[in-house]
Amino acid sequence: MKLDGTHQRSITRTADGAGARILEQRELPWVVKWVELRSAHDAEIAIREMWTRGAPLIGATAAYGLAMALAEDGSDAALDAAYAQLLESRPTAVNLKWALDQVAGAVRPLPAADRAAAAFARADAICDEDVALNQAIGAHGLELFRTLHAKNPDRPLNILTHCNAGWLATVDYGTATAPIYLAHDAGIPVHVWVDETRPRNQGALLTAFELAGHGVPHTVIADNAGGHLMMTGQVDAVIVGTDRVTANGDVCNKIGTYLKALAAKDNDVPFYVALPYTTFDAATATGADVPIEERSGDEVTYVAGEGGRIRVTASGAANPAFDVTPARLVTAYVTERGVRESV
Amino acid sequence: MKLDGTHQRSITRTADGAGARILEQRELPWVVKWVELRSAHDAEIAIREMWTRGAPLIGATAAYGLAMALAEDGSDAALDAAYAQLLESRPTAVNLKWALDQVAGAVRPLPAADRAAAAFARADAICDEDVALNQAIGAHGLELFRTLHAKNPDRPLNILTHCNAGWLATVDYGTATAPIYLAHDAGIPVHVWVDETRPRNQGALLTAFELAGHGVPHTVIADNAGGHLMMTGQVDAVIVGTDRVTANGDVCNKIGTYLKALAAKDNDVPFYVALPYTTFDAATATGADVPIEERSGDEVTYVAGEGGRIRVTASGAANPAFDVTPARLVTAYVTERGVRESV
Repeated sequence: MKLDGTHQRSITRTADGAGARILEQRELPWVVKWVELRSAHDAEIAIREMWTRGAPLIGATAAYGLAMALAEDGSDAALDAAYAQLLESRPTAVNLKWALDQVAGAVRPLPAADRAAAAFARADAICDEDVALNQAIGAHGLELFRTLHAKNPDRPLNILTHCNAGWLATVDYGTATAPIYLAHDAGIPVHVWVDETRPRNQGALLTAFELAGHGVPHTVIADNAGGHLMMTGQVDAVIVGTDRVTANGDVCNKIGTYLKALAAKDNDVPFYVALPYTTFDAATATGADVPIEERSGDEVTYVAGEGGRIRVTASGAANPAFDVTPARLVTAYVTERGVRESV
Repeated sequence: MKLDGTHQRSITRTADGAGARILEQRELPWVVKWVELRSAHDAEIAIREMWTRGAPLIGATAAYGLAMALAEDGSDAALDAAYAQLLESRPTAVNLKWALDQVAGAVRPLPAADRAAAAFARADAICDEDVALNQAIGAHGLELFRTLHAKNPDRPLNILTHCNAGWLATVDYGTATAPIYLAHDAGIPVHVWVDETRPRNQGALLTAFELAGHGVPHTVIADNAGGHLMMTGQVDAVIVGTDRVTANGDVCNKIGTYLKALAAKDNDVPFYVALPYTTFDAATATGADVPIEERSGDEVTYVAGEGGRIRVTASGAANPAFDVTPARLVTAYVTERGVRESV
């Protein structure tokens, strides 16, 4: 998406082709810093220390990391060592393993001297495929938004989103944000309500930064405000990403998503879930079968902001990181293959 | 309620009987400071600058302020001037005008020399009446909680509350918190989920402080978490206060209340609204007729915490302060006169 007027992917090869250039996300939006990764070790640190985040982006970073390792040493031993090193940087990220397997599988049949070039080519392809996938999600979502806007063509189309399923979590466009960017670029006057998304504030920090960079009108709101906005006719649709959709259509996503889905249902506002097809998890029956990560209470008791963090309660806190939105609250699933009204 | 092991009202007369002693609430829980108000001017500043807050407490503070003015000068002119001065300190607070009218009405028939003593006595009575009222709300709520706890006697009774309708907003006990304190004092093992209550964090700052002072087990949560907790059986009841209940039973309360009421309904969790009878507003037909205050976006973009505040987004924000919970989502209204299932 655009940043300072120029279209940028969140990861690309460096100008000399031998490294990867990423946006360092930890201090966004306060510090906007592009960094060059020059070794597998650099890539490992970038993933482990969360300079970069989001499943597709982690996968792409690891893929380039493996290519950089092979440029130094194309041997089987070097390949195996770098694979293990990168896999360990974020062990629970399924997409990370997938991307590493893609690269390793492509280069293993090749002579050592040819492996680096092939690995870089495969990493480039992984990025291009992610962009194409998000563009396809965006194109299908765009048609939904176009229809909604046609109902009230004289006013902006108000979209509410939660957390960051955006450009900064993918190589470009994002999932939930792809239809927003495509609608904006198509001339539909989109305005986005950005849920702050406590406790980590990914909406206030990242989604708002993205939308500002691309020039999409938006307003940050407390997570508490969405119900009121829907009740008073100020939201035309809700769109969110997801970490997993179970076999029955239940949606596992950032904590608080369920509350917005309830409000959408109660006010006849369409509730869309944007996802790549691979996020459908047919092996898990329902949302009740998904373990919910309980993160540190410090993420609630301290709020991060410009220049540091501040303590906001003297008491202890609980911090469930995800919740389950029952399938009955979902209007449609927006995927790269099209729009599905049920799973 | 208790603070440092001693039962304290949030406002009392000073030891010499000539002033009012209040808890300075602006820097709670980080700075716990009792201040003595010694003049109508002190009372006016305390109200205007929000050292004190909550409708009953503002009323009591103003009542003592008028008494202090009359102690300096018992004339009609002084009475009228102090009345006007105090009324202006928070013009939209209905309870403020009510309390001033109570005191002024009681003293106007009296000789100037007798007015101060009568005014202090009326102010004391206003405080005592508020305490008795909240105790009565608490007693009725306690019976509800006792019944709920009897269903699962082997585990703590988990109550979720939003914002601060507590001791710090009244003279003692609070409204939504009164049943919690009485249940705790009656030996029912209560645990309270305290909604942070963005954007002003009254839950994380004030309700958590109150509960800690009185020794009630509690856990702060992001406002986003309540739906998940209800879905997973971790909430036995929700109880909130209200600024106004309209003729049809709609509940106007702090932004985000509606989302919790939706989740309670969706999970068969009782949703209680605690209020003094005077908060029923028969003159307003429905919640849609209540104007919703739009406050400064800075309350969203900056978060207050220990020692200061921090900026949490680089974008602009909207900040509706209240929302409307439809009557159909309310299980019962808990008042000083008893429990009503509908208005």
